Amino acid sequence: MEAPRSAEQRKGDTMARLASDADAWIATASADGDGYLLPLSFLWDGAGVIVCTPRASVTGRNLSRGGRVRIGVGQLRDVTMIDGTAEPVQDERTKDAFAAKHGWDPRREAADYAFFRVVPDRVQAWREVNELPGRTLMRDGSWLA
Amino acid sequence: MEAPRSAEQRKGDTMARLASDADAWIATASADGDGYLLPLSFLWDGAGVIVCTPRASVTGRNLSRGGRVRIGVGQLRDVTMIDGTAEPVQDERTKDAFAAKHGWDPRREAADYAFFRVVPDRVQAWREVNELPGRTLMRDGSWLA
Repeated sequence: MEAPRSAEQRKGDTMARLASDADAWIATASADGDGYLLPLSFLWDGAGVIVCTPRASVTGRNLSRGGRVRIGVGQLRDVTMIDGTAEPVQDERTKDAFAAKHGWDPRREAADYAFFRVVPDRVQAWREVNELPGRTLMRDGSWLA
Repeated sequence: MEAPRSAEQRKGDTMARLASDADAWIATASADGDGYLLPLSFLWDGAGVIVCTPRASVTGRNLSRGGRVRIGVGQLRDVTMIDGTAEPVQDERTKDAFAAKHGWDPRREAADYAFFRVVPDRVQAWREVNELPGRTLMRDGSWLA
């Protein structure tokens, strides 16, 4: 295990991942408490994690409910965890930016795709067990570092 | 993108991952429908995915409920998805095998750790979008290949 990173370093690494990674793990739940997980392409727009999925899919229905969502960015031993709730994306410019990042515009698909923004209120980053202390970078919507 | 793998190949790759990977993404839900996600070390014992986590943690409480659990093994663009429900692990030999695999015996921790086995009823494996057709390897608890 490497030495634990500082809070500033973890935030920097997190921001770099949010800017450049293509996909993230999206964990949602149904109203009656069934867990679900799917890798989805995402865009970080500075305010939240934008994802897009068929409105009628399990993840689409779960995101529409407004329950808590948890997003894993990175890898199993180098993770950023984002907790928040999803809201519909209204503005077309955000959708344009998503389409530009991924070379794929869901608005041109035959199926009915919905865009969601997961606005974080908690962000954590850790690699291995020695980084569990100090893993919280955002609490109640405020960056600590 | 590479050519899509056959069902046999996907099952072989899945079995190899289950035998050798250390960690997996565990997506659970609370009774009132909040999604949760955590990377945890696992053991595949031939019947299910064994994980161990503090009984009082969010994941521990969610797994105790018996709701649906989804486990992601592998990477964002090379994933095996396992759906099932968790049951408590009773036998000490399974716990011994978990401890031997990870060089860590949670029974020796001061905190109260609980072992769970997630028995799959559905298993899917895909890399990219061209592998979405044919991704289901197990349905209703039966392997298709």
